[in-house]
Amino acid sequence: MAPVTNGRIIFNSVPTGFPVPGETTIYDTTETIDLDAAPLDGGFLLKTLELSVDPYMRGAMRAPEKKSYSPPFALGQPLRGYGVGVVLRSENPQVKAGDHLYGFFEHKQYSIRKDLTGLQVVENAYNLPWSVFVGVVGMPGKTAYMAWKEYAHPKQGETVFISTGAGPVGSFVIQLAKADGLKVIASAGSEEKVQFMKEVGADVAFNYKTTNTAEVLEKEGPIDIYWDNVGGETLEAALSAANVNARFIECGMISGYNSGGAPVRNIFLVIGKSITMTGFIVSRIEHKYNEQFYKEVPAKVASGELKYREHVYNGLEKLGDVILAVQKGENKAKAVVHVADD
Amino acid sequence: MAPVTNGRIIFNSVPTGFPVPGETTIYDTTETIDLDAAPLDGGFLLKTLELSVDPYMRGAMRAPEKKSYSPPFALGQPLRGYGVGVVLRSENPQVKAGDHLYGFFEHKQYSIRKDLTGLQVVENAYNLPWSVFVGVVGMPGKTAYMAWKEYAHPKQGETVFISTGAGPVGSFVIQLAKADGLKVIASAGSEEKVQFMKEVGADVAFNYKTTNTAEVLEKEGPIDIYWDNVGGETLEAALSAANVNARFIECGMISGYNSGGAPVRNIFLVIGKSITMTGFIVSRIEHKYNEQFYKEVPAKVASGELKYREHVYNGLEKLGDVILAVQKGENKAKAVVHVADD
Repeated sequence: MAPVTNGRIIFNSVPTGFPVPGETTIYDTTETIDLDAAPLDGGFLLKTLELSVDPYMRGAMRAPEKKSYSPPFALGQPLRGYGVGVVLRSENPQVKAGDHLYGFFEHKQYSIRKDLTGLQVVENAYNLPWSVFVGVVGMPGKTAYMAWKEYAHPKQGETVFISTGAGPVGSFVIQLAKADGLKVIASAGSEEKVQFMKEVGADVAFNYKTTNTAEVLEKEGPIDIYWDNVGGETLEAALSAANVNARFIECGMISGYNSGGAPVRNIFLVIGKSITMTGFIVSRIEHKYNEQFYKEVPAKVASGELKYREHVYNGLEKLGDVILAVQKGENKAKAVVHVADD
Repeated sequence: MAPVTNGRIIFNSVPTGFPVPGETTIYDTTETIDLDAAPLDGGFLLKTLELSVDPYMRGAMRAPEKKSYSPPFALGQPLRGYGVGVVLRSENPQVKAGDHLYGFFEHKQYSIRKDLTGLQVVENAYNLPWSVFVGVVGMPGKTAYMAWKEYAHPKQGETVFISTGAGPVGSFVIQLAKADGLKVIASAGSEEKVQFMKEVGADVAFNYKTTNTAEVLEKEGPIDIYWDNVGGETLEAALSAANVNARFIECGMISGYNSGGAPVRNIFLVIGKSITMTGFIVSRIEHKYNEQFYKEVPAKVASGELKYREHVYNGLEKLGDVILAVQKGENKAKAVVHVADD
């Protein structure tokens, strides 16, 4: 068969504020690949099906000398992120053609990989759409499920506040908190998202763009747990409304990702209120809960017990726009780029 | 016997910045008391010997409608704080004349108390000076000892950074950390204090006024534990220099006490570094460690194994000046006001 285009999303320049599609990232079609004949050198050929676009990716769009917990994207090279794909050919005995893999993908249509580093074979016993394996059954779902188990220490009757409660992490956390018997306050940035948060069980759901977060928490709090995806002023409001011995689960702080960090002026409240604030990266606790997660969560998704929403964008060439939409909160739900059918 | 003057330190006005002696607080001599005949109504007469002046007291100098973890000082009434005293007369069977009491005192020379609420009888088996019972064997000592046991989770070979390491809390923490086999970095605000931190075992001791904290931590870190008494820019530097899975013990944030809170701009680092930040008030964990503390610490003070320093000011009338000195860090060691001899 003749070589085909191997479309790629290239990291082209370090953004100073929001990433600019076409400038920060470029969709490149200059590479081709012969799917039947390209040498595998003992590895395997992977076809990308779905790519996840997540808030944390902004952190990798930085100059290489700036340190952080994950490596930066390399200028001139494809972005990387969570994805699902199918093996087309393999010389590696660990995987065979037809296997589906979840893990860290290069943002290109086809990749030749040497081994399973950063990847795992996934079963799909319930025949779920592959996109959920980068969403509610992927990194965002693991983030919610595992950190809630590890850090929340919920007690029946307590109150939790969840910011970005309509996202793939927040909406899962709402459902975990309700299952544990908590009162749930949740915020998001549109009326449609407020509606979704109510559908998944939030007792108090509000639009932070039209309603003052501090006033809601003052009225509905004090809060015993804060699940933070936002940082900045929202974190300040949560500190003000926190109960003694509150747990703050620091999952993300998107309010500062495009401005170099949002200041928090009342952090001293952690002392008087004996607050424990825990930051985490799900990959560091994944080994403790992975088996339990894959046993429990796909079944609950299949039965409809666990609700989720996705916003699927079609075509790898859209990825730069989706990154920007996610940084601005314009996506309607968990953002997935559908690259190819299975 | 004729009535004697019962000197008092009165909370006179709410300060906006640093407290002003003679304005924020007033030494008042209008009250008298007849030590032999004043009616006890079933309570007891307590003579104040030593009063502790601590950084946290600034927080109680606020308008009554402002909420916090401890009650505000009442305008027109004496301040309150930790102290040691001796019972002169008693109608309460729980205590007898000659008993020494530690706990929460009104800032006056003599008090009539109904019962032991906020007080405990202390033994002095090693004949230590009474001032140590508000210092290394009092609240500051308990703060260091108990929070280190509860939150530090030290592992041999790790590195800890302790701010205000020459204070009564910090200097005790240095010694606890060295006993646990850690590398200790400690900061304070004068060369004399640096010398003292070295004497009690700090491996790296520096004057933050003449040496850049961030540079020291960059060179000597990364740090696994940060004992924070300062907040603000020092906390920012510690976040920047923290290792993955670092523990931040939030004991105090004096840098913001006189300015309404110092902003922290890189709090987002708790996420990428999986930092756990725990605020605490020693009174909430005291019940777990009190017995162990009084069994262990006075003996170590008496033997000289546990080193401490005090800065004793003579006379209750000095108390307002001592509060200001402590807020400005001008005291040379744990500040104690000696009110009367035993």
